[in-house]
Amino acid sequence: MVSDAIRMGHGSGGRLSAELVREVFLPLFNNPAINALGDAGVFTLDGKRFALTTDSFTVRPIFFPGGNIGKLAACGMINDLAVSGARPIFLSAGFILEEGLALEDLRAIAGSLAQEARGVGAQLVAGDTKVIEGQAGLLINTTGLGQVLDCTELGPGRITEGDTIIVTGTVGDHGLAVLLARGELGISASFPSDCAPLWELLEPLYQGLGAAVKFARDPTRGGLVTVLNEAVRPGLDFVLDEALVPLLPAVESASEMLGLDPLYAACEGRAVLFVAPDKAEEAISILNAHPLGRAAAAIGRVVAGEGLVIGVTRTGGKRVLDMLVEDQYPRIC
Amino acid sequence: MVSDAIRMGHGSGGRLSAELVREVFLPLFNNPAINALGDAGVFTLDGKRFALTTDSFTVRPIFFPGGNIGKLAACGMINDLAVSGARPIFLSAGFILEEGLALEDLRAIAGSLAQEARGVGAQLVAGDTKVIEGQAGLLINTTGLGQVLDCTELGPGRITEGDTIIVTGTVGDHGLAVLLARGELGISASFPSDCAPLWELLEPLYQGLGAAVKFARDPTRGGLVTVLNEAVRPGLDFVLDEALVPLLPAVESASEMLGLDPLYAACEGRAVLFVAPDKAEEAISILNAHPLGRAAAAIGRVVAGEGLVIGVTRTGGKRVLDMLVEDQYPRIC
Repeated sequence: MVSDAIRMGHGSGGRLSAELVREVFLPLFNNPAINALGDAGVFTLDGKRFALTTDSFTVRPIFFPGGNIGKLAACGMINDLAVSGARPIFLSAGFILEEGLALEDLRAIAGSLAQEARGVGAQLVAGDTKVIEGQAGLLINTTGLGQVLDCTELGPGRITEGDTIIVTGTVGDHGLAVLLARGELGISASFPSDCAPLWELLEPLYQGLGAAVKFARDPTRGGLVTVLNEAVRPGLDFVLDEALVPLLPAVESASEMLGLDPLYAACEGRAVLFVAPDKAEEAISILNAHPLGRAAAAIGRVVAGEGLVIGVTRTGGKRVLDMLVEDQYPRIC
Repeated sequence: MVSDAIRMGHGSGGRLSAELVREVFLPLFNNPAINALGDAGVFTLDGKRFALTTDSFTVRPIFFPGGNIGKLAACGMINDLAVSGARPIFLSAGFILEEGLALEDLRAIAGSLAQEARGVGAQLVAGDTKVIEGQAGLLINTTGLGQVLDCTELGPGRITEGDTIIVTGTVGDHGLAVLLARGELGISASFPSDCAPLWELLEPLYQGLGAAVKFARDPTRGGLVTVLNEAVRPGLDFVLDEALVPLLPAVESASEMLGLDPLYAACEGRAVLFVAPDKAEEAISILNAHPLGRAAAAIGRVVAGEGLVIGVTRTGGKRVLDMLVEDQYPRIC
């Protein structure tokens, strides 16, 4: 049950977030596009499939190694469309500025957002600016409209026994980099966030493999394990070979020092893919050909089961990788 | 020149807001749809015209006479599409919740948003929830996609000498109602906000008069005078007959008591229209037939001039009604 008042964990992407969506929002906004709980709502307009996605970005600090909140707001929107098989075409941005924000910071942040949007050929056609009291920061909402490629057929319902689970790169870089950038932990980050736009990485995969790509998702809040838990269903288990999950050594050691599990840490430039087993090798070779997919690897497989995500540890043990109730740290995106 | 840091006035909808948009955002997001600075960006998709609009809502208090921030977030989106001649079809909502927000308040607010969207037949197909530290309030972004009616041809460039300026109802109700609802002024409001969805009021006008409706805008932040100043251009003056502007007596007396000018106060359920003079009477009779347009009236005319908005006062004097540098009060929407 959702408690009586909102707490930070309701925004974590974990179990509390899921309950809030299921108990408050879904009953009110009941329609096929929203009930699908995809990263974007897909609908048909004039016989063509389009996708609409929205995200608010609240990350602190607003500048971090490898990016800033503007780059993140563009990439987050692009990636939600990309994992829905949709080419980003138009976007809007709503800036909520806090009093005292330096104008040069705003310029840099809006500049990063513009650059990433331009990079995928998306046009910003609507914007809004509000100002609130606060601590010289800002919040950004981006909403993106994309056109779904005809060749794609993506959905968690298409995942079947035998499918290969692929991740396009190292996981947890973003979450750990942002956490360390807060400077409260006495460790400094030697690695940047993975924040990056995924459309150009994923489009060749969709064009090349079509419906053999069953499902895609970008593991943001709650990381890899949370995304897997959202996609799994009764009758299937997802078996994750933890030794195969790409990890930057610096992310691994920072995680160990802080007692965090990088499998639950946010990525902002990675996708998790479910691919038909006979096409898995081809998928990895397409991904490896792009700079953002050099570390792409098969990390697990879909087996008959009870709706669990199971990790096979490096020592060969097994553990159930459940969703966290709330995230390890708030305001990561 | 924009100053070095953001202040509350940059979100007011007045001159400071306009400078921020012109100096920071437009150079970055340069394209025809955004450069038009309409309430929504209009673009063509598969030969049909669509409009996309985005707005963040930061109003305090989150409940006020006549509505709440959820109703406002839906109506603001609907109205930006409506004054662009677009029927709302899909929308997204991004909720930024402050820690401590009562869940029943969130339910009521999301319920109002859902109800207004359903009222115009728009489907919410994408949503997002984040949580930040704060004072148990919330911020909402809504983004709406609408299809522009074939019969409309709207734009400030279509306004010509002789056009009649019409407002669809009393002005300033929202701004004053919200201000009084804060309870800081020792006056209580005896009137509700005008917050309402305008699509059903304006659609018959567009269908009936087509291109004779030259331009429409909803006077939110900065009110009636700000909207007129944004639309006027060199070669024309807009002459406003102040005695003809519909005002609730309670709004008028509260404004006088507080030393505020209701012509600059926000509306959230009104439109300003520029109509060809031979169709003005018909326009008003179409508007009067709808409950939201009972007080619709012609309030001025377009004459040859120098790009000014000129008020003819009740005593027959003339004054230039310039844009304010910043709004009279922040966080009204």
